Amino acid sequence: MSRPLRIGIAGLGTVGASTARILQQKANAIALKAGRGIVVTGVSARSRGKDRGFDLGGMAWFDDAANLAVSDDIDVFVELIGGANGPAKAAVEAALDAGKHVVTANKALLAEHGAALARVADEANLAIGFEAAVAGGIPAIKTVREAATANTVNRVFGILNGTCNYILTRMEDEGLEFDECLKDAQALGYAEADPTADIEGHDSAHKLALLAAIVFGSEVDLNSIYLEGISAISQDDLRAADELGYRIKLLGVAQQTEQGIEQRVTPTMLPKSAPMARVSGVLNAVAVDGDAFGEITMVGAGAGGDATASAVISDIIDIARGRLTPVFGIPAASLSPVNRSGMQTHAGAYYLRLNVYDRPGAFAGIATRMAESGISLESIMQKGRGDTETGKPLPVTIITHNTMEEHIREALARIEADGHIEGRPQMIRIEKA
Amino acid sequence: MSRPLRIGIAGLGTVGASTARILQQKANAIALKAGRGIVVTGVSARSRGKDRGFDLGGMAWFDDAANLAVSDDIDVFVELIGGANGPAKAAVEAALDAGKHVVTANKALLAEHGAALARVADEANLAIGFEAAVAGGIPAIKTVREAATANTVNRVFGILNGTCNYILTRMEDEGLEFDECLKDAQALGYAEADPTADIEGHDSAHKLALLAAIVFGSEVDLNSIYLEGISAISQDDLRAADELGYRIKLLGVAQQTEQGIEQRVTPTMLPKSAPMARVSGVLNAVAVDGDAFGEITMVGAGAGGDATASAVISDIIDIARGRLTPVFGIPAASLSPVNRSGMQTHAGAYYLRLNVYDRPGAFAGIATRMAESGISLESIMQKGRGDTETGKPLPVTIITHNTMEEHIREALARIEADGHIEGRPQMIRIEKA
Repeated sequence: MSRPLRIGIAGLGTVGASTARILQQKANAIALKAGRGIVVTGVSARSRGKDRGFDLGGMAWFDDAANLAVSDDIDVFVELIGGANGPAKAAVEAALDAGKHVVTANKALLAEHGAALARVADEANLAIGFEAAVAGGIPAIKTVREAATANTVNRVFGILNGTCNYILTRMEDEGLEFDECLKDAQALGYAEADPTADIEGHDSAHKLALLAAIVFGSEVDLNSIYLEGISAISQDDLRAADELGYRIKLLGVAQQTEQGIEQRVTPTMLPKSAPMARVSGVLNAVAVDGDAFGEITMVGAGAGGDATASAVISDIIDIARGRLTPVFGIPAASLSPVNRSGMQTHAGAYYLRLNVYDRPGAFAGIATRMAESGISLESIMQKGRGDTETGKPLPVTIITHNTMEEHIREALARIEADGHIEGRPQMIRIEKA
Repeated sequence: MSRPLRIGIAGLGTVGASTARILQQKANAIALKAGRGIVVTGVSARSRGKDRGFDLGGMAWFDDAANLAVSDDIDVFVELIGGANGPAKAAVEAALDAGKHVVTANKALLAEHGAALARVADEANLAIGFEAAVAGGIPAIKTVREAATANTVNRVFGILNGTCNYILTRMEDEGLEFDECLKDAQALGYAEADPTADIEGHDSAHKLALLAAIVFGSEVDLNSIYLEGISAISQDDLRAADELGYRIKLLGVAQQTEQGIEQRVTPTMLPKSAPMARVSGVLNAVAVDGDAFGEITMVGAGAGGDATASAVISDIIDIARGRLTPVFGIPAASLSPVNRSGMQTHAGAYYLRLNVYDRPGAFAGIATRMAESGISLESIMQKGRGDTETGKPLPVTIITHNTMEEHIREALARIEADGHIEGRPQMIRIEKA
């Protein structure tokens, strides 16, 4: 057996502490799988004092992560500090410059600086393991980077944020509104005090950007992802979805179209029969459509200290065994710029909810605008009655046949301008299977 | 870039032809992922004549697979001949002896001779890739061998045979009996002319044995798997399952119990809410319960030329990149013998269907026998009435609370001996979630 692989862990929050603890508790079993011992020789965190459930004995303490990153006593730098810039970025860059492999759970860092970091790592034949950055314990990165290699991938998609999925599931199951579910998610620790990154889709976008880069062999390009969060989803939408045979999920989708690569994170309606429609609560799911293996769907815990540590450790063991892979599956120098396919050419069916004033000509006007834009309708549903005297509007839900998004936007803009509806129209994309 | 990796393919059926074709068609994309070219330099099959959809130019032809296996012009021997013994085994042994890596889809070979072959391969630092042997395009082997490495696995289970799942799905959806669905499966090419290996569970057992060896670090031991096929499943069972909230799947389950490792392939009732209950048709599914990552479930195509070739090629690319792993995840010399936990100690709930003669004392007698064996009942369901005069028996279905299998067997044996029931009782195990 070779000499032990020496690990430095920067950041001893839930994931860092779980990583150190599991490496200690299962040292023998892990050494058998890794072909050598794996020892944590250095750690870095803000406060030294508290008990984190593992033995700090034999570990050097670093107040500054950047010093740990270049320590002569580590072979692998595990970055669990977080944040796209600042100390995490500086430490990872320092580690690579010093010839250390890197393992990280930092999706923001890689989504923003992945191309540059990969170039450094690939040229030096160093690993940047980031299984923990996407979908927690689900081996999504390993699957797209190592298992899908014979496939031309047409689409990768998933439920990539457990907080949003928890909120949408509660809203659906219990008929609660968004704000209430968000408060519960915060109380349970599923959502941050500032929940923006989760509920506005930024966290999902980071993960999608990494998956897309690998499956399409393109540079990570966060800016080419179209983003809508879940805060505008209401009980009206969930009830209509249920009646029409759909569920609403915050879905990240990257797909090859005739125009290029379309990437979006939006609330999306899935037919109830779709496997991902049934993924509920804090679970995550990732699916890959390949021309050789068909569709592979993976479901599991997307977060949590031990699940994420499990991904960190699997990356460490790959390094210990010498199982190295270019950061994004092919050498960074061969990654192509993203040929972005914008949302105006998105093709699909749409759910629309309009609050229509109940007055003569309103319906006809709306139907005419749809027809003018070449949109054909699969179903139209109205419930109850409006009130012609008070002018109280009537909610109308429409499912369109496949069409292009620019036509939908055009029709909705004209319908708004015609003054037939109250407020903004709601529009949710439908994803088939 | 290193020199090309040279591949010899023995067996040019659907999977072999797909493998050669994809390697040719995607040569450039695959070379980027593999870090070097991958070329098929030799092939072997029964007949040379027919067009298989790829260009044989530049490939040496071998009438005898064993000669291809030791050819100086190959680095990797891809065995797609099939069969646990005979030419497949001889060729794989010859390839390893000659220092060639092996990639195979042959579950029978590895389930029966895996321990011995792994010993040879691990000592010579050669790969035996067998992703294609288990669940087709689903990266089940990669997941248990490389992604689950931080976990102590408590259970691995799955729908491992598409033929059986197709038959059970048709029976359930269309109310057809087993024989009719089997005929259709044969007509569609989903089942062999001799369907025994599929419907009696042998094929699933081979796959389960391989998964179990990896997750428990134990020698492959086909003989310790308890086996029941699906041919005794009737519409009565499917209807009762549906009413009771279950679906019936042929499930392979390997789990750690207090007594050791329990391995079984049996028709199993799953709650309709369980993710795997909804895996229908020819799809396969594999789930792993680990103490760190929780439960990971993967669903996808379990068979088919391209899906299986996708797995073969991912193994080849791992070898091209030098991503080597001991055959069963830890060195073969460290695999422990299976400490078998027999079915008599299986703990779980049971579905029982008895044809009870409608006569005084029959019910009481059955209930007494259950109570004597310490079995408590969750539900009991009878439909219609028997006929005390003609003696026509009455079907009664019972769901027990958790109990041990030896108690169920004891009670059923006594009930049979008491003469209260017609024919053999039906007994199906229930798996929670």
